[in-house]
Amino acid sequence: MQSSGVVLHTDKYQINMMYAHWINGTHNRKAVFEAFFRKLPFGNGYAVYAGLERIVAYIQNLRFEESDLVYLSEQEENYDPAFLEELRQFRFTGSLYSVKEGTLVFPNEPLIRVEGRMLEAQLVETALLNYMNYQTLIATKASRIKQIAGNDILMEFGTRRAQEADAALWGTRAAYLAGFDATSNMLAGKMFGIPTKGTHAHSWVQSHDSEELAFERFAEALPGQVTLLVDTYDTLKSGVPHAIELGKKLQQQGKKLAAVRLDSGDLAYLSIKTREMLDKAGLEDVQIVASNDLDEHTILNLKVQGARIDSWGVGTQLITAADQPTLGGVYKLVAREGEDGSYLPTIKISGNPEKVTTPGIKEMYRLIDPATGKAVADYLCYPEEQQVLKGEPIELINPSHPYLNKKVTNYRAEPLLTPVFVEGELVYELPTLEEIRAYHREQLGLFWPEYLRMLNPEHYRLHISELMWTTKTQLMKAYLYK
Amino acid sequence: MQSSGVVLHTDKYQINMMYAHWINGTHNRKAVFEAFFRKLPFGNGYAVYAGLERIVAYIQNLRFEESDLVYLSEQEENYDPAFLEELRQFRFTGSLYSVKEGTLVFPNEPLIRVEGRMLEAQLVETALLNYMNYQTLIATKASRIKQIAGNDILMEFGTRRAQEADAALWGTRAAYLAGFDATSNMLAGKMFGIPTKGTHAHSWVQSHDSEELAFERFAEALPGQVTLLVDTYDTLKSGVPHAIELGKKLQQQGKKLAAVRLDSGDLAYLSIKTREMLDKAGLEDVQIVASNDLDEHTILNLKVQGARIDSWGVGTQLITAADQPTLGGVYKLVAREGEDGSYLPTIKISGNPEKVTTPGIKEMYRLIDPATGKAVADYLCYPEEQQVLKGEPIELINPSHPYLNKKVTNYRAEPLLTPVFVEGELVYELPTLEEIRAYHREQLGLFWPEYLRMLNPEHYRLHISELMWTTKTQLMKAYLYK
Repeated sequence: MQSSGVVLHTDKYQINMMYAHWINGTHNRKAVFEAFFRKLPFGNGYAVYAGLERIVAYIQNLRFEESDLVYLSEQEENYDPAFLEELRQFRFTGSLYSVKEGTLVFPNEPLIRVEGRMLEAQLVETALLNYMNYQTLIATKASRIKQIAGNDILMEFGTRRAQEADAALWGTRAAYLAGFDATSNMLAGKMFGIPTKGTHAHSWVQSHDSEELAFERFAEALPGQVTLLVDTYDTLKSGVPHAIELGKKLQQQGKKLAAVRLDSGDLAYLSIKTREMLDKAGLEDVQIVASNDLDEHTILNLKVQGARIDSWGVGTQLITAADQPTLGGVYKLVAREGEDGSYLPTIKISGNPEKVTTPGIKEMYRLIDPATGKAVADYLCYPEEQQVLKGEPIELINPSHPYLNKKVTNYRAEPLLTPVFVEGELVYELPTLEEIRAYHREQLGLFWPEYLRMLNPEHYRLHISELMWTTKTQLMKAYLYK
Repeated sequence: MQSSGVVLHTDKYQINMMYAHWINGTHNRKAVFEAFFRKLPFGNGYAVYAGLERIVAYIQNLRFEESDLVYLSEQEENYDPAFLEELRQFRFTGSLYSVKEGTLVFPNEPLIRVEGRMLEAQLVETALLNYMNYQTLIATKASRIKQIAGNDILMEFGTRRAQEADAALWGTRAAYLAGFDATSNMLAGKMFGIPTKGTHAHSWVQSHDSEELAFERFAEALPGQVTLLVDTYDTLKSGVPHAIELGKKLQQQGKKLAAVRLDSGDLAYLSIKTREMLDKAGLEDVQIVASNDLDEHTILNLKVQGARIDSWGVGTQLITAADQPTLGGVYKLVAREGEDGSYLPTIKISGNPEKVTTPGIKEMYRLIDPATGKAVADYLCYPEEQQVLKGEPIELINPSHPYLNKKVTNYRAEPLLTPVFVEGELVYELPTLEEIRAYHREQLGLFWPEYLRMLNPEHYRLHISELMWTTKTQLMKAYLYK
C-alpha cells in the first residue's frame, strides 16, 4: 500500500474529462462551476455551511506526485505521456468563492463557485463535494440539536460509530462550530482546540473487585473532574448509591463529585430518581450527564417528560446524521468560455423541473430588513446587475413559483460569497474556530424563530433577479424545442 | 492546525482510564477485551467482517509523538508528568486475535480479541471500533447488493457522498472485498489496486456547443472505452439518438461504442426503450450502465420490471449505508488479571438481557457438516475445553434460549480467530485484496442460500459451551443478588 496525497481523492471521470479536454485542446478554456444542494436535510428550515477550512488545505496541496503519475500511466485509458507531463506541472490557478463556515444556507444557493481552467475546475469537484456534503450535514444536525438543548451542555461522543476516522474528526469540528460545547475525540482537541471531555467506561468498574472501589480509585486519580458512570450493574440499586456514598465522603474532605453519567435504560425515569436521591443526600450540585443514542427528538422528549439532565453526550445519531446520512450536494457547470473568450451561460435540463440548473455566474446577497435586523430573503443576480449594490428597489422572482413576485425597496444587502482563492492565490484569512462559532450564533440571530424551529419550519426564500429568470427561461426553451 | 499520527484517534475517557490505572498501579495488569456487534444491519442474515488491514497499520503506528504529549500536558486533568513519560515509551505489547476479513460473521461473536496491559487494551478501543464498525457495515451492504445483482457488473460511485475522505477510500475497499467489481475512486485504485472506471459528466456535454459534438470528441479522446452519458438534455429524444449516430459511425470505422449511461428518470422504462433503440440500430453489443441512488431494493425492483441494465453504478446508498449508517459494535472487558496473576472472567449486567456480556476468554469455531460442506452453527468455548479440537460430541447451548440445546457429533471445526499480533509482534501475513475477495466467495459457499437471502433470512446460530453458560449464569447471580 502506497501513501498518497489528496490529488487522487477524485473520480476517474474527472481524469477522463481532463484528458479529453486536453486532447481536444480545450483544457485551458475557462469554466465556472457552482456547488449547491437541492433539499434541506432532516426537514430542517436551514443548513449550516461547513467544510471550507478543509477545502482550502486541499486546494493548497493539489499536486500530482510521481507515484500518482506512475499509477495513471498504468490505466487502461492509455493516457498520452504528454498529458501526464501536463499533470506534473499542474497547480490550481483558478478562483474559488465560498460562503463562510457557519453561515445559514438554503437549497439551490451557490455555496462554492469555482472559476478556472476546465482541467482544474473539473478535477476538484469530487473532493469539494465530499468535504462540503459531510461537514455541512453534520453542522446542520448539530445546530438542530442545539436548538432543542438550549443552554444545556452538549458533548460529541460519536468517534467509535463515525464512518471512519476523517468523519470522526471533521464531524466533531462541524458539531462544535454549530454549537456543541465539547468532544471526546482527542485528535479533534489537539488539531482544532475543541475542549475535550471524558470520564470512564464500564470496563473501569469491571476491572475492580467492586463498584465502590472502582469509584473511589477513579476519584483519587482524577480529583478535578469526578464524573462516575453508574449503570455497570444496576443504576438505582448500585451505581447511584455508591456514587452518593463517595460524593458525601468527598464533600467531607472539601472535594467534590462533579457528576454521574447515565448510559442506558429509561433516561427520563432514571434521571428524575437520581436527582431525588442526590438531592436527598445533600448533593444538589452534582450534575447528571446522559448518553445513549440521543438526538434532537429524544432530547426533546426527555425534556417534555421532565428528565433532570444537565449535560448530553450525543454520539451515533449526530456523527452519522443517522436519519439522513447524506446532503446530496452537486457541482454544476453554469458558464463556459466561448471561442471568443466571453462566458456563455450553460444549463442542465432535467425531466424533473427542480433539477434544471440556473445558468450563469451569480452573486448572492442576504437582504436584511434594517428595521428588524432580520433576514427577508436571499437574492441571486448577475455581477453586471448593480441595483443591489446601489440599494435600488429590486424585484424578487421566486424561481419555483415565478408568479410570486415581490418588490423590496428598503434593505441592507450582505454579500454571501467571499473570494477565497483568486487566480490560485489564497486571499482569505481563515477565521479561528471560535470566530466561526460566534459568527454562526450571529447568523442565527438574523432569522426569525419560525425559520429555526425543529418541526415544520417556515420556508425561507431564495429569489433570483428578473434577468436571471429570463436567461433561464430562454435557455430552457432553446434546448427543449430545438 | 498541527498534523498528527493516529494515537489520539481515541476518546478522552480512554486516556483518563489509562491515567487512573497508572495512578492506581494497575496499568500493567492484563485485561482481555472483545469487540462484537449485537444486531445484524439491514435485516440481513449475516455481516461481512472488514477493517483488519487498517487495524494492523494502526497498531503498528501507535506512538505518542512530542506534540501529542505537549497537548496532553495542557489538559484540565493535570496528568502527572511521569505518566506522560510512560506514554512517551508506550508501544503496543499485547496480543490481538481477529477473524479474517471477508468472513461471514454474526451477532455476539468476538470479532477481535485484545489481550494486553490495561493501558494498551483500553487505548485502542475507539479506533478499533471506528474501523471495524464502518468497514464491516459497508462490506455487508455491498455483499447484500451483490446477492441481488448476481453476475452483473457492480461499480462503487459514492465518493462525493461519502462521510468524508476516509469513508470514501475504506468504504470502497470494503465494497470490493465483498463482491463489487470496480470503483470510480482513483485513490482507492492506487492504494488497493481496485479496478477504476469512469466516463464523463453532464458538464462534458454542457461544455460543448452540442451533444453530438461532445460525444464525438469524447470518443476521439478515449477510443478504448467509449461510454456516453445520455441524459444531459433528454434521454430518449436526444441522448440515445446521438449515441446511436456515433455508435454506427464508430462501427463503420471498425471501432466500438462500449456503453451508454442512464443517470436519471425511470430507469426501467428508459433502459428497455434504450435497448430497443440500440438493437434496432444494430448496436446489440452496446451495454447499458445505470446509476442514480441505487441499492439492493431498487436493483431488485428494476430487475423484476424487466429493466435491461448490464452494469450498475452504486453511490450514496452503499457508501453511507443510508438505511442504517452504523453497525453499533462494542468492545467489552471479558477477563482481567487478578492479584495472583490468573485471569478472572468479568461480566457487564444490563436491564436488557440481550446486553449482558458473556464472560471469559473465548475460542470460536465454525462447525461444518462434512456430508454437505455447509456450516451448521458457530460455537464458543473456553480454551481449556478441548472437545472440539478432539472432534468429540459437543452440546450446543443457545444463549438466548438455553432450553434449545442441540448435540453435534459429526463435524469439522474451523477456528475463526487468528493470531494477528502476539506480544506486540505482527505474526499475521496480510492477504492481498484479491485473496480476501476469493475467501469471501468461499465463505458464502459455506452457507445455505436460506441464510444469504435479502428478505427474511434464516437465523444462523451462535452456540456456547455448557461451561460458558454456567459461568455466565453464576456471575449474573453473583452481581444481581449480592
